[in-house]
Amino acid sequence: MADPRFFRRAGPFRLRELAELAGARLSEGADPEAEISDVAPLETAGRGDISFLDNRRYLAAFGESRAGACLVAPDVVDRAPKGMALLITDKPYRAYALIAGHLYPAPEVREDRHASAVIDPSAVVGPDCHIGPGVVIGAAAELDAGCHIGANAVIGEGVSVGAGTWIGPNVSLSHCIIGRRCQIHAGVCVGNRGFGFAMDPEGHVDVPQLGRVIVEDGVEIGANSSIDRGSGPDTVIGAGSKIDNQVQIGHNVQLGRGCVLIAQSGIAGSTKLEDYVAVAAQAGVAGHLTIGKGAQLGAQCGVMRDVPAGASVVGSPAMPVRDFFRIVSGWQRQLKTKDKPDE
Amino acid sequence: MADPRFFRRAGPFRLRELAELAGARLSEGADPEAEISDVAPLETAGRGDISFLDNRRYLAAFGESRAGACLVAPDVVDRAPKGMALLITDKPYRAYALIAGHLYPAPEVREDRHASAVIDPSAVVGPDCHIGPGVVIGAAAELDAGCHIGANAVIGEGVSVGAGTWIGPNVSLSHCIIGRRCQIHAGVCVGNRGFGFAMDPEGHVDVPQLGRVIVEDGVEIGANSSIDRGSGPDTVIGAGSKIDNQVQIGHNVQLGRGCVLIAQSGIAGSTKLEDYVAVAAQAGVAGHLTIGKGAQLGAQCGVMRDVPAGASVVGSPAMPVRDFFRIVSGWQRQLKTKDKPDE
Amino acid sequence: MADPRFFRRAGPFRLRELAELAGARLSEGADPEAEISDVAPLETAGRGDISFLDNRRYLAAFGESRAGACLVAPDVVDRAPKGMALLITDKPYRAYALIAGHLYPAPEVREDRHASAVIDPSAVVGPDCHIGPGVVIGAAAELDAGCHIGANAVIGEGVSVGAGTWIGPNVSLSHCIIGRRCQIHAGVCVGNRGFGFAMDPEGHVDVPQLGRVIVEDGVEIGANSSIDRGSGPDTVIGAGSKIDNQVQIGHNVQLGRGCVLIAQSGIAGSTKLEDYVAVAAQAGVAGHLTIGKGAQLGAQCGVMRDVPAGASVVGSPAMPVRDFFRIVSGWQRQLKTKDKPDE
Repeated sequence: MADPRFFRRAGPFRLRELAELAGARLSEGADPEAEISDVAPLETAGRGDISFLDNRRYLAAFGESRAGACLVAPDVVDRAPKGMALLITDKPYRAYALIAGHLYPAPEVREDRHASAVIDPSAVVGPDCHIGPGVVIGAAAELDAGCHIGANAVIGEGVSVGAGTWIGPNVSLSHCIIGRRCQIHAGVCVGNRGFGFAMDPEGHVDVPQLGRVIVEDGVEIGANSSIDRGSGPDTVIGAGSKIDNQVQIGHNVQLGRGCVLIAQSGIAGSTKLEDYVAVAAQAGVAGHLTIGKGAQLGAQCGVMRDVPAGASVVGSPAMPVRDFFRIVSGWQRQLKTKDKPDE
Repeated sequence: MADPRFFRRAGPFRLRELAELAGARLSEGADPEAEISDVAPLETAGRGDISFLDNRRYLAAFGESRAGACLVAPDVVDRAPKGMALLITDKPYRAYALIAGHLYPAPEVREDRHASAVIDPSAVVGPDCHIGPGVVIGAAAELDAGCHIGANAVIGEGVSVGAGTWIGPNVSLSHCIIGRRCQIHAGVCVGNRGFGFAMDPEGHVDVPQLGRVIVEDGVEIGANSSIDRGSGPDTVIGAGSKIDNQVQIGHNVQLGRGCVLIAQSGIAGSTKLEDYVAVAAQAGVAGHLTIGKGAQLGAQCGVMRDVPAGASVVGSPAMPVRDFFRIVSGWQRQLKTKDKPDE
Repeated sequence: MADPRFFRRAGPFRLRELAELAGARLSEGADPEAEISDVAPLETAGRGDISFLDNRRYLAAFGESRAGACLVAPDVVDRAPKGMALLITDKPYRAYALIAGHLYPAPEVREDRHASAVIDPSAVVGPDCHIGPGVVIGAAAELDAGCHIGANAVIGEGVSVGAGTWIGPNVSLSHCIIGRRCQIHAGVCVGNRGFGFAMDPEGHVDVPQLGRVIVEDGVEIGANSSIDRGSGPDTVIGAGSKIDNQVQIGHNVQLGRGCVLIAQSGIAGSTKLEDYVAVAAQAGVAGHLTIGKGAQLGAQCGVMRDVPAGASVVGSPAMPVRDFFRIVSGWQRQLKTKDKPDE
C-alpha cells in the first residue's frame, strides 16, 4: 500500500465495478462482488489486490501470484493460477492505469487563495482554483475553473490557463496559452524568448521573439523542462503530448497530438513533429525538419534530416535502426578479426 | 502582428528612419516618408510591413512578396517585385534585428519594490529598479540602476548585479558578480558550489569551492541553465556571450567574448573557450581543455582534446567535420556492399 | 584568499593541528607551530599558505612553489623545494579537502524562521533550523534539527528532511524522505510523478506513481537536477552519492552507496546502480538494467545492457573502453588509407 503520508486511497471497489471501468470481461467463476482494495505487483499482491500482466516475460510470476485479481490479455488466461479472478482485456496495462487511477485518484483541487499570493487586480481567477502560497499572477492573466497553482509559481502577464490544469511549485510561465487538464511539473519554464539573434563579431543583436507558446489540452510537461516562445509564429505542443523531465523545445517547434518526448531530449527551432512521434531519452533533433507521424527516434540519436512517417531511427547521425545495428555488428566483427593476428 | 497581450508595439516609423537605424540604403524610387508599422515574414507581409531576405532559398517567396519594404543584400536587388521598397545592406538579418527591436522594444523597467519582496537592510538597490513580488535579496547584495528582478528570484548574499540587467522569475544567484545589460532567464542557477570532492571509498570529501562566477556585460543565459562557481579561480562568462537553455558550465570554466552555447550543451571544469566559440546543441567538452578562437563544435559532439582556432569538429570523440562525414560515408558503403551477398 | 563577500575564513591554524586533522605526517625539520592561514595553488601560494600535489604533472610547479606547507604523497618528498614543510599522506587530495574545509567551514546554520515563510500548522520544524524568506512547508512535513531551507524553496506535504541537511533556494520537494547532512542545490526537483502512462492512440492514460524518493544520508544533488518518485517501489539514492547539475533520475531507479553522477547524465526507470558506480557527463543508461559495483560509464556513453562490476565502458552503444578506442583507431586508419588513392 502506498505511503499514506503522500497518497490517499479510495475504495474498496467490487470486481464488477473495476471490470466495467476498465472495459474488461470477468473470467468464469470470478466473483463479481469480491472486493479489491489496492493495486500491487504480481510478486507481492494478496487476496484484496489487483495486479496486471502485460509482458510474457512475467508469465512465471503470474503463475505463482497470489493476487486476488489480475488484468490479462485473452491469450494467457489458461496460465492463471487457480482461484485468481481475471479481468480480460486486449490492453491490460491501459486497464491497469484506469483502475490504479480509480483507487488512487488525483487529489482534489482545494479551493483556496493563499493570503501570501500576489494576484494582479486585473487578473481573472476562475472558481474552485487553488492558488498556493507565494504564487504570483501577473496583469490580465486568466485562470479558468479548477486550476491548481503550486507554491511560488509565477504566472506572467497575459498568460491564460485552461480549466483543471495542475501547475507545480516554482514553475515560470510567460507568453503562453495553456490548455485544459494539463500537468506542468516543478521547475518548468515556458515562454522565454527563443534563442534568436543575428550573430556578429561586433556584438550579437537580439531578434525580438514575437510569438507565443500554445500548449493544447491534456499535455504533461516534466520537471525542469523548458519551452521557448516562437520568434513570430507560435511554438505549439499538441493535445495529449507527454513531455518528460529536462526536455528542451526551441522556438517555433510544432508537436502534433500525442507525442512522447523522454527525458533530456531536445528539439531545435522550427522543427515539426507530426502526431504520435516518440523521442527517446537524450535524443536531439536539428532545426527546420519534419518528423513524420508515428516515427520513433532512439535514445541519444542525432536527427539531421527529415524522418518519414512510421520510421524508427537511431545513431548520430540518425539512420534506420536496422542499418545502425548492422554497422555496430561490423565494428564488433573487426574487433574479433584483429584480435587474432595482433595479440 | 504580435499578440498584444504579450507585446507592445511602437511606431509606426518612416522608411528613412528605419534605413538610418539599420545603416541601410534605400532603393531608387522608394518613398522615404512611407510608414512601416510592423515586421512580418515574406509570405504574409503587406503594405505596412517590413520583411527581410537573408537566404537565397527564399528568393521565390521574395519575388512574390507583398511586403511594403524589405531588407536585402545588394546582389538580390534585381529580384524584387515591383513597387517594393528595398533597404539595402550587407547584413540584412542584423538590420532586421535592429528594426524589429525598434518596433517591439523591450518593456521598460517599471520602478517598483513590491511589498512582498524581502530585501536585507544591508543590500543596496539602485534607482529605477523593479523588484518583483516574492523576490529575496540577501545581505550586502548590490543592484545597480535599472535592474529588473523577476518574481520569486533569489539574489544571494554579497551578489552584485550591473545596471540594466534583466533577471527572470525563480532565478537563483549566489557567489557571483553579474555585469550590465545581461538577460538571465527563468530558473537559471548561478554560483552553486562546483562538483569538487576527493573521491574515497570511505566517503567522498567535499573540497570547498572558494571561487565566484563572473558574468561580464551583455551576457544572455537561457532557462534552467546552471553555472557553478570556481574552486579557487573564478568561473568567467565573457562579454556578449549567448547561452541557451539547459546549458551546464562547470567550475573554473572560462568563456571568451561572444561565445554561443546552444541548448543542453555542457562544458566541464577548467576548460577555456576563447572568443566567439560556438557550441551546438547537446555537445560536451571535457575538462581542462582549450578551444581556440572561433572554433565550432557540432551538435552532440564529445570533445576530448584541445581544438585549434577556427576548426570545426563533430562526432564523439570529436574530429574534423570532413573526417567525420567521410567515416559515416564509409559505414554507408559497407551497408550497401553487404546488402548484395547476404540478402 | 577567497572573496570575503562570499566566504568566511577560520584560523589561522598550526601545522600540527592541520597534520592531525588530515592524518598526515610532518616532514623532518618542519615547524609544528608554524601558522597556516589559507589554502592556495602551488603557483601562487606563499609562506602562510598550504597547497597540495596530487598529480605528478605538477612536479615542476611543486619544485618551484613558495608555499609554506604542502600535502604530498611519500614518493615525492625528495622533490620538495628547500624550506617547505611537508604533510605526508597517501591521499593528498583528500587531506587537502579536509584542511580546506577546516579553513573555510560551511556557514553555520542561523536559527531563523523568516516571517514571510508559510509553514503549515501541522508541520514539525526541529530546533536550530533556518527557514528562509518565502519558504513554503506543507502539512505534516517534518524537518529535523539544524536544517537550512533556502529562500522560496517548497517542501511538500508529508516530506521529511533529516538533521543538518542544506536545501538551496527555489528547490521543490514532494513525496520524498531526505536523509541527514544532504546538500540539495538550487532549482532541484525531487518527487515528481514518474513518466508512467499507458500509451494509446486514443489518449495516453497516466499510471499513478505511488512510490516515493528515498534520499539517504550525505547525498549531494546539483542544481536543476530532477529525481522522480517511484511507480510503486521507491526511487532510492544511496548514502554519500554525489549528483552533479542537470542530472535526471527516473522512477524506481536505485543508486547504491557513494555513486557519482556527473552533469547532464540520465538514468532511466528501474535501473539499479550498485555501490560506487561513476557515471560521466551526458551519459545515459537505459531502463531495467544493473550496473555492477564500481563500474565506470564514460562521457556521452549510451548503456543498453547490464555492465559488470568494475568494468569501464564508453560509446553509444556502450562497450569496453579498449574496444571503443580500437574501433575509433580503425576509423582513423581508413581515413588515411583513402587519402591516398582518392585525392
